[in-house]
Amino acid sequence: MTAVYLDNNATTRVDPRVVAAMLPMLTEHYGNPSSAHESGTLAKRAVAAAREQVRALIGAAHVDEIVFTSGGTESDNLAILGALAARPGRDEIVISAVEHPAVRTLCASLARTRGLVIHEIPVDAAGRIDRAAYQAALSERTALVSIMWANNETGTVFPVADMAAEANAAGALFHTDAVQAVGRVPMVLAERMIDLLSLSGHKLHAPKGIGALYVRRGIKLAAQTIGGSQERGRRAGTENVPGIVALGTACALAAASDDTTIAFLRDRLEGGLLARVADSWVLGDVEHRVPNTACIAFAGVESEAIVRLLDRRGIAVSSGSACAAGSVEPSHVVRAMGVPERFARGVVRFSLSHETTAAEIDRVIETVPDVIAELRADQLESAA
Amino acid sequence: MTAVYLDNNATTRVDPRVVAAMLPMLTEHYGNPSSAHESGTLAKRAVAAAREQVRALIGAAHVDEIVFTSGGTESDNLAILGALAARPGRDEIVISAVEHPAVRTLCASLARTRGLVIHEIPVDAAGRIDRAAYQAALSERTALVSIMWANNETGTVFPVADMAAEANAAGALFHTDAVQAVGRVPMVLAERMIDLLSLSGHKLHAPKGIGALYVRRGIKLAAQTIGGSQERGRRAGTENVPGIVALGTACALAAASDDTTIAFLRDRLEGGLLARVADSWVLGDVEHRVPNTACIAFAGVESEAIVRLLDRRGIAVSSGSACAAGSVEPSHVVRAMGVPERFARGVVRFSLSHETTAAEIDRVIETVPDVIAELRADQLESAA
Repeated sequence: MTAVYLDNNATTRVDPRVVAAMLPMLTEHYGNPSSAHESGTLAKRAVAAAREQVRALIGAAHVDEIVFTSGGTESDNLAILGALAARPGRDEIVISAVEHPAVRTLCASLARTRGLVIHEIPVDAAGRIDRAAYQAALSERTALVSIMWANNETGTVFPVADMAAEANAAGALFHTDAVQAVGRVPMVLAERMIDLLSLSGHKLHAPKGIGALYVRRGIKLAAQTIGGSQERGRRAGTENVPGIVALGTACALAAASDDTTIAFLRDRLEGGLLARVADSWVLGDVEHRVPNTACIAFAGVESEAIVRLLDRRGIAVSSGSACAAGSVEPSHVVRAMGVPERFARGVVRFSLSHETTAAEIDRVIETVPDVIAELRADQLESAA
Repeated sequence: MTAVYLDNNATTRVDPRVVAAMLPMLTEHYGNPSSAHESGTLAKRAVAAAREQVRALIGAAHVDEIVFTSGGTESDNLAILGALAARPGRDEIVISAVEHPAVRTLCASLARTRGLVIHEIPVDAAGRIDRAAYQAALSERTALVSIMWANNETGTVFPVADMAAEANAAGALFHTDAVQAVGRVPMVLAERMIDLLSLSGHKLHAPKGIGALYVRRGIKLAAQTIGGSQERGRRAGTENVPGIVALGTACALAAASDDTTIAFLRDRLEGGLLARVADSWVLGDVEHRVPNTACIAFAGVESEAIVRLLDRRGIAVSSGSACAAGSVEPSHVVRAMGVPERFARGVVRFSLSHETTAAEIDRVIETVPDVIAELRADQLESAA
């Protein structure tokens, strides 16, 4: 059994208060928001209340700027495809080299199928984006920029507000995949030039299968799922009322929560491990990070082996992003930072949540050094 | 409070056994199926088990023919857009005149934006499709046929197996929107020439926000949501594990349920109302219908008024499809059947489920005639 869950960047436990809020929408107020009777009206009101809770967490100016989707990947796809379709004449997209596959693979596909030019902005060894290269890539041909708010593997936070202003000056739309940032860093979108922002429920203690896309008022967006007139014509399909209510509740809880404990525990974990494990190294921009993520490279060991051994001891962590798991190659994020080979294969991501306790962190600090020592000893043996 | 819910074609109550099955996936086995640790493995196994439950209900030959989506609308969009992209060279689509907006509006949009030719096959006064017109529409230019299995407003079941064979003979793919049919009529897809089939969780006592698309093995389908490699590359995004488990459970329950009671209660309702309300008429093909739907036209009254008055008396019904609700015009389905004007404005859909009781039906049989009489008296008065 998993005793210590430190894989919250892959997905989070649904908060019991979130479950309590969504349950009545399953068996009691289960109407279709499009229906004219009371059962439908109650569902419609619940969706409206949740929309306001999402708006409040991200500091959007208007509730009608929130479009509910099935999750982060759909939000990213809707943002990019929807904005492109509404913006003919410009045929270039600017992304970072460390975007999530929902942005990166989609853009690769657009380059292949539609001949769009994709500018991939590099990051440095600390995961920081190359601002000069970014500025140079922007032009009157740029339809859209898509730069994540926080990286899923290292937790590095990008200066999206400034970059959005620069995109805006170039006449380009600015989208940010903020699934790892929403609920972890404060944001007031009403004061920023960010046009589109993706968020995902299951990264903030709501269930999988629900997400949202923020679409600044006035931004044209072509629907990518066509049918009924739900979500003001921007996303057809019966609203996922229980999921929407869950997401709203999770947003309200995140808005009221305090992240200082998480950052404290993360730093304790990092400090503890670096002190006890030789040849270990923290990846990412330690000055600009979400509070919950520690991405550590252990020299000379395979991250998959670390994940497996820790799992046997009841500790769930990840080797890079969940979507890249199963592959034995270092992730594109690790590669983009130019991490030396000896470290690149031993990258482990520890991602905390507000449910993480000090006792759990201490257990991890006790266990990881043993596991690394065991693996390094095995290697010496097999090399001998 | 809604006491009698007869709007199950709009959405259903989530079965408490379905809730019980999905709950552990929210707070206990909440891992990401892509994660390498035990928490992820448990989630992955739960998804696999649910996929088999869905396969079994629709009699598909292989589990890998099931692609989980966020619902019926997404399934319809993925089927049509995904099949078109994988089938260049053919530029015509054949649909019926009574398709759901997820097919109808999408096709209208494809006609507008891509110049595709859409053949809309008419239905007769009983809602039966014009088979000769269908056969005449098929040609070597037909990329895809999309004909619903059962109509959402009248419950009329179309001969999709035969029509699929005809499409196949013309070299066209055959898609069916079966959201109103799955769990209500038996189906063995392995023995049919149906290439693509859409189903929706919330029409069969699973939650909103989950659905599936059946894709016959060997059929090429271009993913419409791009990112991670989930669902064998046909639909990116973290799997909605609780929703998937819920859908699987709902399918298993539907497979084990007996529809004879529903049909008996529906017939009792229909017989009772026709006997007590003069100038009333059952719409649709009464010989070929799903067992749960009664679509009745009451002459000289507005359906919106009936829905409102019944709602006040605790009975939830619909005036046509939920997606068309709010509009005062008769639905496109009622129009397509050429229902005379005097009846067309007074169409009410009663849709039952296995939870519907005889006592509820009797209450509806008591209440509806009063409501119609009241409305007709008002009209006489205002006309006087």
